[in-house]
Amino acid sequence: MNSLEEMGKRAAEVKYRLQVLSTEEKNQALLLAAEGLVADREAILAANEADMDAGRAAGMHMGLLDRLRLDADRIDAMAQGLRQVAGLPDPVGKLLQQWERPNGLQLKKISVPLGVIGIIYESRPNVTADAFALCFKAGNSVILKGGSDAIRSNMAITKSLRDSLARAGVPADALQLIEATDRETAKAFMKCKAYIDVLIPRGSSGLIQTAVRESTIPIIETGTGNCHIYIDETADLTKAVKIVINAKTQRIGVCNACESLVLHEKVAEKFLHALQAELAHTVEIRGDQTVCGILPEAVPATEEDYGKEYLDYKLSAVTVGSLEEAIAHINRYSTHHSDAILTGDVSHGEQFTREIDSACVYVNASTRFTDGFEFGFGAEIGISTQKLHARGPMGLPELTTYKYIVEGNGQIR
Amino acid sequence: MNSLEEMGKRAAEVKYRLQVLSTEEKNQALLLAAEGLVADREAILAANEADMDAGRAAGMHMGLLDRLRLDADRIDAMAQGLRQVAGLPDPVGKLLQQWERPNGLQLKKISVPLGVIGIIYESRPNVTADAFALCFKAGNSVILKGGSDAIRSNMAITKSLRDSLARAGVPADALQLIEATDRETAKAFMKCKAYIDVLIPRGSSGLIQTAVRESTIPIIETGTGNCHIYIDETADLTKAVKIVINAKTQRIGVCNACESLVLHEKVAEKFLHALQAELAHTVEIRGDQTVCGILPEAVPATEEDYGKEYLDYKLSAVTVGSLEEAIAHINRYSTHHSDAILTGDVSHGEQFTREIDSACVYVNASTRFTDGFEFGFGAEIGISTQKLHARGPMGLPELTTYKYIVEGNGQIR
Repeated sequence: MNSLEEMGKRAAEVKYRLQVLSTEEKNQALLLAAEGLVADREAILAANEADMDAGRAAGMHMGLLDRLRLDADRIDAMAQGLRQVAGLPDPVGKLLQQWERPNGLQLKKISVPLGVIGIIYESRPNVTADAFALCFKAGNSVILKGGSDAIRSNMAITKSLRDSLARAGVPADALQLIEATDRETAKAFMKCKAYIDVLIPRGSSGLIQTAVRESTIPIIETGTGNCHIYIDETADLTKAVKIVINAKTQRIGVCNACESLVLHEKVAEKFLHALQAELAHTVEIRGDQTVCGILPEAVPATEEDYGKEYLDYKLSAVTVGSLEEAIAHINRYSTHHSDAILTGDVSHGEQFTREIDSACVYVNASTRFTDGFEFGFGAEIGISTQKLHARGPMGLPELTTYKYIVEGNGQIR
Repeated sequence: MNSLEEMGKRAAEVKYRLQVLSTEEKNQALLLAAEGLVADREAILAANEADMDAGRAAGMHMGLLDRLRLDADRIDAMAQGLRQVAGLPDPVGKLLQQWERPNGLQLKKISVPLGVIGIIYESRPNVTADAFALCFKAGNSVILKGGSDAIRSNMAITKSLRDSLARAGVPADALQLIEATDRETAKAFMKCKAYIDVLIPRGSSGLIQTAVRESTIPIIETGTGNCHIYIDETADLTKAVKIVINAKTQRIGVCNACESLVLHEKVAEKFLHALQAELAHTVEIRGDQTVCGILPEAVPATEEDYGKEYLDYKLSAVTVGSLEEAIAHINRYSTHHSDAILTGDVSHGEQFTREIDSACVYVNASTRFTDGFEFGFGAEIGISTQKLHARGPMGLPELTTYKYIVEGNGQIR
């Protein structure tokens, strides 16, 4: 028996205990875990320093080093995150539906934990605590596999959390971390269908595509966002410039950033000049012929540009003659994450939200709001770009499933 | 470009038109399709006769030949099925949730079609019409792949349905049938992730396991049922005998049939004698030592028996000393489809329904009620044994997903 299999068995064994924990027991454990992280600060920081040393020695970029770095404030923020999850409503045991059949059978549909959740993630060590807290609050056992860069930090955080679980009288195996960080282990993990109910890959599109190909466990695809903003002929162009700049530049490396502009030809020129006046050439625009005619500094766009998630100071731009053309273009090139129309015409907004096939469809707002916290969920485990189970930002209820309870008095068919 | 890819493209193209069809348009098309099936009866029966001839020539068993056979009544029943689906509530466009954020953003969560659904099924040709009707009513485009035995019948039914769609002014490509019936095509179909949103394999556990391994499309696993009935020490044994006989023998080849008995040791002897008095040795009982001691005709059970879906006149039986032991046994060996407790103690029923991790958990009723029609859904596309998206019987709402519509007046982050 290999170690992954042992971990799977342990997780599957404790899931039955976890799914019947009371809200009070779960919250108590989360609060103890928050205290524990703060108490274990020195050990966690020492482990993180070793990860940072290894990163520096390997020539890791500043940006990645910053994502990897922990300090007292970041550990406090992790602890605060656990307390926040303790404060959220328990998604388990909700009566979703109830009815009676003519034969007298009483049916109830009740929310229950998914069981065992596997999560593969990269880089930031705080995900270890966040992902554990959400899975645990929803009554699940979780097996985490982080990246090699953060392995020492992740191990120290996991040790602290597991110690706290034991102190709270809850099975420590509610949280397990895979310590091997190679790709082969990741692939083997994706085949542990006998023990894991759901796998959530969080990270690069390479990781997610590997999971799509390799996993026999049902997965929830997260993340890739080629988000569009369509500037309708009736848009308020002053607001439109602000929204596009916000969606493109407020944080460039995130999945809800705008990557593609679609412009009604009647307003393309006025809008692009106003946009460029604000952007001052900080964003490279890759446009079609019309766009390049308006902005001589624009780079001619290729077919590939229209489908691309740049995660960079780049933006594709295409002009269209009608709302219908805009919708067809977006449905074709979108990753179906978040797409927006900016319009002064209510019926255009309605048509757009009806016909665009994306998780989140916006009217007159920045795509940057696609986020569990911004939606008011109080938490987020990721943003689903698939259609099964969950779509868009996933909070605690998305970490549950349901079961039917059928009560009778001897009914047979 | 191969033909699967062409079909995928056509399905993906029409899905945008299907998802905005009104309820009226969809129902009208379903009613025309029902009329069409009746009008095309001769052609469908001739195609079916050719399938039957081929089946007989290949030495197909009587049972399978009967599943394959169509006659005027069965075609009428298919047409009636389409009319029933027309009469069901439209699952698309339902406002599932609505709220406002402090920044003024207005959020709505709305049910929408999944998009393109792939279904792989075996044998019975009526599934062609049933599966089409449900997918279509939920606004989806569907690509079907039936078994080779029924290919001529499936082609004739598909032609009839597509002709009716065209007559109704709806894209005929809402329904496509893959005419190749080899396994390689099935595997290639499972990789068409670019065009298909969800794949539902319906059939043997071999087919489903192939889909788990091969599919890059998210799948919904259906069907395998090792359903348990636990006879508690407080059970009404007269009712218990009736329920077990119903669950085991009313139809032996179905996934909600009982395959495994769990008996409290205090009532095992009395119950088994009463059961055998009714069964009169028509069912082979494979039991543990205690069971074999009570019933000399019982066959000693192996470990494998406890986990088996016999689909036959066979039943495993194990004795336990407590409710907790029964729950642990069932959670270990169940396929998490449907499991029942027969008890006179309300608190035992509550503990069982809380702790058993199955899609449908029964108290004092036959497991045979796990069925979309018996649950009152008015339809069923299959019974999910996985936890993502849908669990247990799936009706029309399970063929939809949702999207978030976010309306603002210029909000940025």
